[in-house]
Amino acid sequence: MLPFKSLIEIDKNNSKPIYLQIVNQFIDLIRQGILKPGTKLPGSRKLSDILGIHRKTVIAAFDELYAQSWLEVIPHRGTFVNQHLPETKTTSLIKGKKPFQIPEKPGYPFDLNTILTTPFTPKNNLLEINEGYPDVRIAPLKELAANYRAALHRKPLNKHLYYLDCRGNEELRIILSDYLNNTRGLSTTSDNILLTNGSIMAIYLAIQSLVKNGDKVIVGETNYRSANIAFQLAGAIIQKVKVDEEGIVVEEIEKICQKHPIRMIYVTPHHHHPTTVTLKAERRMKLLQLAEKYGFIILEDDYDYDFHYDHNPLLPLASADKYGMVIYTGSLCKTIAPAIRVGYMVGPKVIIDEIAMFRRFIDRQGDHMLELAIAQLFKEGIIQRHLKKALKLFHQRRDNFAKLLVEKMGDKVQFKLPEGGMAIWTIFDKAYPLNLLIEKAYHKGLYIPPYRHFSPDEKDLNATRLGFASLNQEEMEQIFEILSSI
Amino acid sequence: MLPFKSLIEIDKNNSKPIYLQIVNQFIDLIRQGILKPGTKLPGSRKLSDILGIHRKTVIAAFDELYAQSWLEVIPHRGTFVNQHLPETKTTSLIKGKKPFQIPEKPGYPFDLNTILTTPFTPKNNLLEINEGYPDVRIAPLKELAANYRAALHRKPLNKHLYYLDCRGNEELRIILSDYLNNTRGLSTTSDNILLTNGSIMAIYLAIQSLVKNGDKVIVGETNYRSANIAFQLAGAIIQKVKVDEEGIVVEEIEKICQKHPIRMIYVTPHHHHPTTVTLKAERRMKLLQLAEKYGFIILEDDYDYDFHYDHNPLLPLASADKYGMVIYTGSLCKTIAPAIRVGYMVGPKVIIDEIAMFRRFIDRQGDHMLELAIAQLFKEGIIQRHLKKALKLFHQRRDNFAKLLVEKMGDKVQFKLPEGGMAIWTIFDKAYPLNLLIEKAYHKGLYIPPYRHFSPDEKDLNATRLGFASLNQEEMEQIFEILSSI
Repeated sequence: MLPFKSLIEIDKNNSKPIYLQIVNQFIDLIRQGILKPGTKLPGSRKLSDILGIHRKTVIAAFDELYAQSWLEVIPHRGTFVNQHLPETKTTSLIKGKKPFQIPEKPGYPFDLNTILTTPFTPKNNLLEINEGYPDVRIAPLKELAANYRAALHRKPLNKHLYYLDCRGNEELRIILSDYLNNTRGLSTTSDNILLTNGSIMAIYLAIQSLVKNGDKVIVGETNYRSANIAFQLAGAIIQKVKVDEEGIVVEEIEKICQKHPIRMIYVTPHHHHPTTVTLKAERRMKLLQLAEKYGFIILEDDYDYDFHYDHNPLLPLASADKYGMVIYTGSLCKTIAPAIRVGYMVGPKVIIDEIAMFRRFIDRQGDHMLELAIAQLFKEGIIQRHLKKALKLFHQRRDNFAKLLVEKMGDKVQFKLPEGGMAIWTIFDKAYPLNLLIEKAYHKGLYIPPYRHFSPDEKDLNATRLGFASLNQEEMEQIFEILSSI
Repeated sequence: MLPFKSLIEIDKNNSKPIYLQIVNQFIDLIRQGILKPGTKLPGSRKLSDILGIHRKTVIAAFDELYAQSWLEVIPHRGTFVNQHLPETKTTSLIKGKKPFQIPEKPGYPFDLNTILTTPFTPKNNLLEINEGYPDVRIAPLKELAANYRAALHRKPLNKHLYYLDCRGNEELRIILSDYLNNTRGLSTTSDNILLTNGSIMAIYLAIQSLVKNGDKVIVGETNYRSANIAFQLAGAIIQKVKVDEEGIVVEEIEKICQKHPIRMIYVTPHHHHPTTVTLKAERRMKLLQLAEKYGFIILEDDYDYDFHYDHNPLLPLASADKYGMVIYTGSLCKTIAPAIRVGYMVGPKVIIDEIAMFRRFIDRQGDHMLELAIAQLFKEGIIQRHLKKALKLFHQRRDNFAKLLVEKMGDKVQFKLPEGGMAIWTIFDKAYPLNLLIEKAYHKGLYIPPYRHFSPDEKDLNATRLGFASLNQEEMEQIFEILSSI
């Protein structure tokens, strides 16, 4: 007989019932091949003596093991380990310890996907220049929390807390449709809107649904890196077009279209990511005409529309899209906080419906509670007031940051004041290699985003986005003190 | 000169400033080809007379149009529509109305994806049998809202409300790791856990990352339909294996493996979806051995583990997975409410890291606020107490529902009492076609889920899942009254 006394360990202080401790340890012994199929077990009286516990506890454990078919009872012969269980090679057992940990690598062949790269994890406890995030300290968090609470309790609960419309909460879709029509000159109804978890999801969904393996697509040379990766994940062939002071060079796009079909072009008209230039009016009109002529899709990522300081923002391409060539995406993540993941996609109803069906198999639906809470913030005018306040504050901060940049580092950097957004695209003099600067700053407690975030082909641009919107005056001064000292 | 008086419409009651109304209407006139590039505009004094507004307003509008490069000023000659804008074919204009709506269909070629199907939208205001959801009326919503609020306000805000770990909130990953180790005999650390928006996302991510186009995979014949679709989306070749009273027939899996390589097998051991049978112990062991022998991945979707009534739940395959063959997925959606989208994936660290990087390009990260709030609910023991309460209640409801099913419809249906879960797989007598029943019930105000949700190949099974967990005694009686009357 096996030495059950030393194999089974009972911990009377554990919250798990004793019979269940016995059950799980028996299962482990069987699965490790220590208790072999067909092995006869001691009677319950004997085992309770060995383990020093009540016989009833042993009987309960045996019942459970029998119900789960680990054991079988053969009349007049006794209780046995189920003889139909497969044989297992015995493994060594370390008493009282889980005999193994999940191995670090899997047991099946597996290649890392070379398209993907390490996620950016913000360094904690460092002063940080980010690549252009809003200041979450002014976000209407109290109001959001209150409305979230109300959304969670909306009656009838069993309509509001089950599986819901994959396109997102209808109240927010209606309000957002109105809001986009009023602020961006779009002509949508709620049927043209799909709510997503941030605009990155809108980009992923649009590309996966509309771009096939081997399709040719166009992006700017320097581009929002995640968009390039999204295209690569779909197997698209990426062609790059120059971006100058007026945005992506539309004449070059036409030349490419004359050679071969293009399926999609990705643009960030307001303000080109990463260099922050605005796509000028005539190029906008021309680009839309090209889409109509050559039948390509314009994926217009207008993540920065609400933050334009020098004049009114330019109406998006989508506002002049008579033939349904444009998929327009945006986000409320910059409006409230990046961690509040609500974005949207605007397009023809047929496309929205199809993409919503695809989304169903990715995460079923967004957070309808959060969406409903945000709808309420719009209804109460809180988002609108917050945007006004943020616009004014970030405008000041842009000017202050630019002033400090000139004062403290004017001879070492070049930049053009962006018309909007939350970051300044800053090109460093070749005598000041950015990599070195980043490293030195890091040792002095300042995090600066590395260029590779903005360079899809990993070219060393010696330039980066310096976000100003989240920094108050004191933080800006601290940062420039560190930068000057390097 | 164009009849500006009738072309430009000013609405003094609109919240949009008048100068901006003029700007947007001018842009529309230009984009529609009514105002052609190079057209000379009337002076500001003249235009203000025509429109009956202050001259300063016209000047502000012209400034804005100039800044956006719609207009150009030629010294000593006046203000013109920018002559570099591309020509547009004139479209007819309906005064005061947006001249177009987004067309229903796009302007580019586009095929519907035949793999996808219409999303299920619950019918409002109907008494409803769902396919097995929890009763959200007993969920700890008040506590969740309070913790969400606290999570939103956690300091420092600019660490907690920015872009965060793609794997999910660390506090919840640590607590969940402990919880899974204690309740399911797993041996995880938080590095083995990726939080997702519901288990459907875990399934999508695992399949997209690990299954290549053309790979062969195995599912049960009758299976969770969304899993089949997730495989189809990845281009996998699906092979079906019978499911009997003891779960998926593992002997058949071995026969297939002897013929050709299998990349992945999807199982719902507790309780097979849709038929609710439990995968028996010996088959679990055998399946794991086959995975080790033939090198395939087991995707173990244990969505129902916490709800097992007749004995303790069987430890998952993942708890005996020494070689990292299993990816284990589960969800808190059934624990709290389906609309609260938090699920998880457990696997070797290398796999979790890779899949987290992929997830970064889908929706960046989950809702860290919600994840943090749920971590707190675990810490306070609220989830654990809620599960105990729900288990007891749903157990009673299963028995009551089964009793009513026998009493009222015993001669028309067959079913086996499920050992756990939230639904009874009910096979209707051929004399009672389910389609007809569903239609008749619908007219009497009762929604019954149609079989096609559970039949990936659209075979008419004349069977469906009848969810009992969300129905109180009164609702059950109403439902059976309607069913009896049909």
